[in-house]
Amino acid sequence: MTVAKITLRSESLCAGGTVGFYEHQSEALGLTARFAVFVPPQASAQNPVPVVHVLAGLTCSEETFFIKAHALEEAARLGVALVATDTSPRGAGVPGEADDWDFGVGAGFYLDATQEPWSQHYRMGRYITQELPALTEAHFPLDGTRRGIMGHSMGGHGALVHGLRAPQMWRSVSAFAPICHPSVVPWGQKAFTGYLGPDRQAWRAHDAVCLLEDGYRHPNPILVDQGMADKFLERELQPWHLRSAAEKAGQSLILREQQGYDHSYWFVQSFAAEHIRHHAALLKAGA
Amino acid sequence: MTVAKITLRSESLCAGGTVGFYEHQSEALGLTARFAVFVPPQASAQNPVPVVHVLAGLTCSEETFFIKAHALEEAARLGVALVATDTSPRGAGVPGEADDWDFGVGAGFYLDATQEPWSQHYRMGRYITQELPALTEAHFPLDGTRRGIMGHSMGGHGALVHGLRAPQMWRSVSAFAPICHPSVVPWGQKAFTGYLGPDRQAWRAHDAVCLLEDGYRHPNPILVDQGMADKFLERELQPWHLRSAAEKAGQSLILREQQGYDHSYWFVQSFAAEHIRHHAALLKAGA
Repeated sequence: MTVAKITLRSESLCAGGTVGFYEHQSEALGLTARFAVFVPPQASAQNPVPVVHVLAGLTCSEETFFIKAHALEEAARLGVALVATDTSPRGAGVPGEADDWDFGVGAGFYLDATQEPWSQHYRMGRYITQELPALTEAHFPLDGTRRGIMGHSMGGHGALVHGLRAPQMWRSVSAFAPICHPSVVPWGQKAFTGYLGPDRQAWRAHDAVCLLEDGYRHPNPILVDQGMADKFLERELQPWHLRSAAEKAGQSLILREQQGYDHSYWFVQSFAAEHIRHHAALLKAGA
Repeated sequence: MTVAKITLRSESLCAGGTVGFYEHQSEALGLTARFAVFVPPQASAQNPVPVVHVLAGLTCSEETFFIKAHALEEAARLGVALVATDTSPRGAGVPGEADDWDFGVGAGFYLDATQEPWSQHYRMGRYITQELPALTEAHFPLDGTRRGIMGHSMGGHGALVHGLRAPQMWRSVSAFAPICHPSVVPWGQKAFTGYLGPDRQAWRAHDAVCLLEDGYRHPNPILVDQGMADKFLERELQPWHLRSAAEKAGQSLILREQQGYDHSYWFVQSFAAEHIRHHAALLKAGA
């Protein structure tokens, strides 16, 4: 098996580990794609470490979570690697793809588009579930049997959906202010209509609440933090649907309402170390 | 006494404290200026807390340190407030002021220019030593008798210089990768020639090594971290001059050579919590 090539953009020592930014020719996207990896000091070829994939929100990139979430120090302490993806393909050249901040560029929703003209490149679903894990595990000392997923906002949606759909692949799941039930909110309806078409039945596999309704479960508790001063809470995030669906489904869910916190990374950074500890415990990382 | 007005740009809860971004009409600069304040949860009108002013480096703004240095959580834990300034006036309209990244906009060097056309607005010296402390201490529960200063690169230069010049005002001092001896390196020579003119005697009050040579001292140990993989180490930073001058002067200096670290905020964030603890201890902040 040939290992796909990656190109180094920059690497720095951080908290005793290595934070690196890379790009490669993505087969899933048919374009050059960027990603970031944090390798903690404990990792080596002889000691591959658990890895948590982080998914950012609308308008963000593979840099955002690493710069703003302040999670690297705790990941270094506990020996957890982090992999960050971009939020959409870049350079697909779909007409109008950069016109809206909540659809197209920076807004890939971590799914494979089925509708023209998006379906040729907008395939972040297979990218984050197949190509990026395989690529990073071939190049870095990551233990693919101990893999978790977390995300913020649109990325929280991605973490919940992929965690529920493939719990054997993503053994720990957490989210900050996720779009819990995209099928019923404006951001989700716009994205799903564009990427998946008008048939709402096709949306269910990309909606955490629908997945729980349809029998998907994760064996481990899912951790979700939601700021109660988040301006998107009522219109776009609607965590009550997730709480209700998890209760009906018997899915263990730790949904914490954080009073006074908004949607920003000031909120995310306030609880990121706790999320890292949640993943480290489930992935049996050691301090 | 009238308290100058400030305008709120945004405030968020972070780590239990409040991180806020503001602007005001600066008398020192003759322009609108932006700044940021982090008030930890322990602070109140009845319990003003110690405050550390943070000075960023070339091309940065009042946002940079707060977003990238990852210092807020430790400041929240220890009850230390942070104040961040911009790195130069904005909108001065000096011809060519934005042409170079190391002079003019984003590169105020924390001094008062004496040369035309810079002297009308480029007065970051009095801004950070007089106007900004007074303004922030009037509007926020900060204890002006327990004030520290820290910075990165050009901001490290600023922290060392102002700390040495006014130790009664800045009771704790630290720096990341400071420009230690600007009079002898390209960044400093370019800035000092432009802002202060060709007379090198006038530069001495703006150079930490010269200040130590000229008898300035700080009663408390000064903490400096320097990454040994910093690409600016040899050409611009030259910490050996600081070590030597401090030794000759009997100035207590904790200069740590951090192997493998570069000039970025990945380096700064790796040691920022330790700097906060250094300041908290000297300013007698309580956990």
